[in-house]
Amino acid sequence: MGNIFGHTFRISTFGESHGGGVGVVIDGLPAKLVIDLEHVQAELDRRRPGQSRLTTQRNEVDAVEVLSGVAGGASTGAPLAMLVRNADARPGAYDHMRQLYRPSHADYTYDAKYGNRTVEGGGRSSARETIGRVAAGAIAMQLLDALADRRERPRPEIVSWVDQVHSITASVDASTVDRDAVEVDQTRCPDPAAAADMTNAIEQARRDGDSLGGTVRTVVRHMTKGLGEPVFDRLEADIGKAMLSLPATKGFEIGSGFAATEMTGRTHNDPFVPGPDGSPTTTSNHSGGVQGGISNGQPLLFRTVFKPTATISSPQDTVTVDGEVTTLAAKGRHDPCVLPRAVPMVDAMTALVLADHELRQLKHTLL
Amino acid sequence: MGNIFGHTFRISTFGESHGGGVGVVIDGLPAKLVIDLEHVQAELDRRRPGQSRLTTQRNEVDAVEVLSGVAGGASTGAPLAMLVRNADARPGAYDHMRQLYRPSHADYTYDAKYGNRTVEGGGRSSARETIGRVAAGAIAMQLLDALADRRERPRPEIVSWVDQVHSITASVDASTVDRDAVEVDQTRCPDPAAAADMTNAIEQARRDGDSLGGTVRTVVRHMTKGLGEPVFDRLEADIGKAMLSLPATKGFEIGSGFAATEMTGRTHNDPFVPGPDGSPTTTSNHSGGVQGGISNGQPLLFRTVFKPTATISSPQDTVTVDGEVTTLAAKGRHDPCVLPRAVPMVDAMTALVLADHELRQLKHTLL
Amino acid sequence: MGNIFGHTFRISTFGESHGGGVGVVIDGLPAKLVIDLEHVQAELDRRRPGQSRLTTQRNEVDAVEVLSGVAGGASTGAPLAMLVRNADARPGAYDHMRQLYRPSHADYTYDAKYGNRTVEGGGRSSARETIGRVAAGAIAMQLLDALADRRERPRPEIVSWVDQVHSITASVDASTVDRDAVEVDQTRCPDPAAAADMTNAIEQARRDGDSLGGTVRTVVRHMTKGLGEPVFDRLEADIGKAMLSLPATKGFEIGSGFAATEMTGRTHNDPFVPGPDGSPTTTSNHSGGVQGGISNGQPLLFRTVFKPTATISSPQDTVTVDGEVTTLAAKGRHDPCVLPRAVPMVDAMTALVLADHELRQLKHTLL
Amino acid sequence: MGNIFGHTFRISTFGESHGGGVGVVIDGLPAKLVIDLEHVQAELDRRRPGQSRLTTQRNEVDAVEVLSGVAGGASTGAPLAMLVRNADARPGAYDHMRQLYRPSHADYTYDAKYGNRTVEGGGRSSARETIGRVAAGAIAMQLLDALADRRERPRPEIVSWVDQVHSITASVDASTVDRDAVEVDQTRCPDPAAAADMTNAIEQARRDGDSLGGTVRTVVRHMTKGLGEPVFDRLEADIGKAMLSLPATKGFEIGSGFAATEMTGRTHNDPFVPGPDGSPTTTSNHSGGVQGGISNGQPLLFRTVFKPTATISSPQDTVTVDGEVTTLAAKGRHDPCVLPRAVPMVDAMTALVLADHELRQLKHTLL
Repeated sequence: MGNIFGHTFRISTFGESHGGGVGVVIDGLPAKLVIDLEHVQAELDRRRPGQSRLTTQRNEVDAVEVLSGVAGGASTGAPLAMLVRNADARPGAYDHMRQLYRPSHADYTYDAKYGNRTVEGGGRSSARETIGRVAAGAIAMQLLDALADRRERPRPEIVSWVDQVHSITASVDASTVDRDAVEVDQTRCPDPAAAADMTNAIEQARRDGDSLGGTVRTVVRHMTKGLGEPVFDRLEADIGKAMLSLPATKGFEIGSGFAATEMTGRTHNDPFVPGPDGSPTTTSNHSGGVQGGISNGQPLLFRTVFKPTATISSPQDTVTVDGEVTTLAAKGRHDPCVLPRAVPMVDAMTALVLADHELRQLKHTLL
Repeated sequence: MGNIFGHTFRISTFGESHGGGVGVVIDGLPAKLVIDLEHVQAELDRRRPGQSRLTTQRNEVDAVEVLSGVAGGASTGAPLAMLVRNADARPGAYDHMRQLYRPSHADYTYDAKYGNRTVEGGGRSSARETIGRVAAGAIAMQLLDALADRRERPRPEIVSWVDQVHSITASVDASTVDRDAVEVDQTRCPDPAAAADMTNAIEQARRDGDSLGGTVRTVVRHMTKGLGEPVFDRLEADIGKAMLSLPATKGFEIGSGFAATEMTGRTHNDPFVPGPDGSPTTTSNHSGGVQGGISNGQPLLFRTVFKPTATISSPQDTVTVDGEVTTLAAKGRHDPCVLPRAVPMVDAMTALVLADHELRQLKHTLL
Repeated sequence: MGNIFGHTFRISTFGESHGGGVGVVIDGLPAKLVIDLEHVQAELDRRRPGQSRLTTQRNEVDAVEVLSGVAGGASTGAPLAMLVRNADARPGAYDHMRQLYRPSHADYTYDAKYGNRTVEGGGRSSARETIGRVAAGAIAMQLLDALADRRERPRPEIVSWVDQVHSITASVDASTVDRDAVEVDQTRCPDPAAAADMTNAIEQARRDGDSLGGTVRTVVRHMTKGLGEPVFDRLEADIGKAMLSLPATKGFEIGSGFAATEMTGRTHNDPFVPGPDGSPTTTSNHSGGVQGGISNGQPLLFRTVFKPTATISSPQDTVTVDGEVTTLAAKGRHDPCVLPRAVPMVDAMTALVLADHELRQLKHTLL
Repeated sequence: MGNIFGHTFRISTFGESHGGGVGVVIDGLPAKLVIDLEHVQAELDRRRPGQSRLTTQRNEVDAVEVLSGVAGGASTGAPLAMLVRNADARPGAYDHMRQLYRPSHADYTYDAKYGNRTVEGGGRSSARETIGRVAAGAIAMQLLDALADRRERPRPEIVSWVDQVHSITASVDASTVDRDAVEVDQTRCPDPAAAADMTNAIEQARRDGDSLGGTVRTVVRHMTKGLGEPVFDRLEADIGKAMLSLPATKGFEIGSGFAATEMTGRTHNDPFVPGPDGSPTTTSNHSGGVQGGISNGQPLLFRTVFKPTATISSPQDTVTVDGEVTTLAAKGRHDPCVLPRAVPMVDAMTALVLADHELRQLKHTLL
């Protein structure tokens, strides 16, 4: 269990870094959505490693194949299944993993959970698993756009970017930043000066056999009001779960987040004023676009933290599966910073949550 | 929707601050669990307002009634339903709420979502809704204890405490702190010096008609290994969702959390060494007890941030439901800091997630 | 588990014949539905025992209380919880049940499942459990009516009646029969001659210390087209599950049902012809209103079989909980035929399935 | 939605008769189950058309590929995905379907539901969709066997057979019939005389351009006691839903079924007597192995009715998608009786429900 996400726009992902392939089944997609497969592939390409010096050098093509659910270029209402083949099965490449537990990887916990040592099963914890999410997320984005078009409202703009790498923090205007600005630099940091520093820091970490963490910041502009359910499925709870389900995440905050402790009720509360269209708007957005678990139409603002990549080429103390003390130094070249690749994953998970809540909200517009 | 939580240990809560009462139905409770109703009531009393100067002065008794699912002092396997009557329905008490939108409350978003103005429905967003969670959480704790007893293992120790109020941060040893220490002071901060400062700060905020936020920190010792599901239902994702579903939360972090950005892979990775019982243990716990979404047996460590209470007695700018500019100053006495009352809510949600994952994990112990 | 039903219009029932009460929580009800509590009570009265010689003599009032989710006479969008108190707890009334297994009751299987002997838990298998379903079903009917009104379409007419008791079969015109006709006679058989024969047969069975089974037939006219999901959640699969979840049911058929074996493709296929409004209609309805799992706008037609009541006052062979051979003769007066009371339960479950699928279908009307 | 089945052993199927392929993702499979892929393929071969004169002549290979979730020959705990490619995409083969509505097919209802005419989407209603179910069902059978082995109990014997074709009814001893006997004849009827008559009747129907329906009967011997959940997820309700979710089904009955109306409580109740192992057993099995929704250890006995195949080569009246009256005569050769192919589908769905309930029952064996 645990491989199904969403209530009404529901996805089921499968596959691991070893084996035939990875993919996703979307159950609950409305019929007649025009499907843009090039966009799906483009989102997959964004998350693909091997694009630059800054990312890992494994070379995968990751061409997506639609197995079902599309006819004449549009969704049929049947499950939309997508598959990406694994092309990179190198026998022996992971042999050392069978012998020992890599620190801060899932090796040991998978063994503890499933009671047997299968490196292949553990491949489910690799970033490759996120292919299914990114593909489904692209479809979710297309659904959000189509809904906005149908309602003659502006399309939602989901923009995530690398906000921080180690001690380097970007300065970005969340009210204007767009995807193009994010994609200018391989770091996916739209602040050029910070991006340059990040590049240097990442390169230095690679030379040191070390790795770096950081944060991804996300804004969603043109939010539908009324998304999110009171109590358990609050919008921030579902978004938070979505982010914390991504590999290597350690925390999540929305709006003021942890900095809320520095404020008081007087400064934190977002005053209402009449908006341009007569409906209330707020003069600040410490709430991050969500009040009482429900979107208020202000931009959704949140931040996700990713730990330094666990795979490093420096020697580390660990134990073998037989409990013997040993030392591990990962061979090959490794991605010293997952942040740039995490951006499309964050975008995708955001779109999945929003699409689900858009469909869940329909019932309240009936009467 | 959104009022059902959990997969195998599943709860459905109902009720709001107005109306007949609040409660919970637990579906999926194993049969033959000895039910300690005094413990349930004690947990409810912990979350009850009106206990001290530090908390709100509304006076409610909140006596829990079991409606079904228990016979001869033990669970029958049928749904366990619990009800707490609302005793505090004061007609007119919320009349002003019908006229305007309170800043950073759910008033406006509930209207946007449901399309009508029902103060009563909005009562679902009040802290009173958490009664059902706390009652069910107490049952979950009893289940966790019974499982540990049956397995002849130490009972899990779920301990949450107020870690920070505004700028005052406690110093607490997570490896030894226990519930008794937490309950010594009304702040639920087990660091006496910090507790005294917090008390002063909260009292000052009350005098100022203002409010304060802060953080609750949680440790779970004697964790079962192997809890959590890869991919979406990672243990930290489910715990994170549970916390972010509590009213007034703005963020969540596990283990190193946002401070992970300050470390590198070398310092962040938790080295494995042979443990006392021969199985691997780690010499640090930056992972916070979870690796790859699955518990590794180390203490679960996380932190949840609560914003300053939205209800303040100082005047605030806002608009009426008709879009007119107005000023709101909440009448009566209000709780200037939700943190002490949040502690039992956090404990309860933690227990609910752990109980659910204990039951979900059973299938992997079969073969 | 197993006490939650529905995907988008989702109910959670609780309570048993012993204990504080029985009830239901509806999660997923659209906001702004005007709630007619008198109708809910009327449906509950229909299922109540003690109304006549033909039904059981236990006397319960079963007044429903709304605990949450309604304000100003309309649904708020929050969970709608309803409670009916148990007034009939007679200590000792069920003592003999503690000693032995009643044949064809759930006594033995509950013991086998839950591993302990709790008559109270077994009360979950009593007809009293259906109170929550009937109350929720009434709300579902009100939702279906409101949707039809909103769409300016005729309201769906859900009409169930007693079609057969033992060897007596009614002759009823499914295209015209209505609720009023069903309620004329205590048998809930709208064929007066058959009703009289059924009454005699039931009275004779009572005198014989025996019991009778039969069938309930259901028609739903003015069906929305397009309800039901391909594959697992076909409309007939969900309706069938709903019926087979009622106590004492042994079978279900839709349209031609088991008689389909007597036909061939030529005679069974429903030919399409142009309908009055131009859209296709069929000249026969062997499909029972569903093709490929989806409603086609023709009347939904199905039939549910109920076994003879297991409780009889004649002596029966059985064993004690200790495995000793013994004889059971139920004391008191018992309902020798569940069929009349089953009618409102069938109506309710039908409405619940249709309301759920109406809400699930919304997403396909978006684009 | 509607393409996910099961609560704890959960499958998600995808694919239609057109497009890349059909398959299934199993989420919730216990780790360490030894996977027998030859058995999976053998079950798929049982459902494959083109095996004989009695079945359709379309020729497909339907070789199954495991995409994920298996390593070293055993389940890893990760989702097990299986894919069968569509090899039979003949452009133009279904062109006539684009022009008109085939009577008693899903053409019209899919259009009504999804609002557009996609023959490809409608392919979801074809028997080919059941490939995913049969593959997953084979895995479920393997799990049931492994559980029995682990408990040192006899393996459950799930045996389905063709019980009736049109007016020809088989005479089969449910207490001894096994899979080998079922597979002797292409009709999958283990009564040789009836099988011969069925063959003749089916061949005659083919010559007549007509089709026949019938019933499949199922027995499961060596049932685990205690499977099934009270109230909604009763074992018979879940089995009934499973059967009614198969294409072309019109009804389901368990135990005495519709014949229960012919009995009275005295003759229908199953008397308890001490069993060979001391625990109670029953001297009759009108209950069909389920009492109060929970298995009692007696054989599970149920029957499913399939209508005559809707595709016939005789001319039929229908309308075009534009509402014009027309005549359809299906071209090519068609399967005049789905019953033999339905047998492995029924076996598979039965295994899926039992596996799910075995896993759901685990929690009650804890305390």
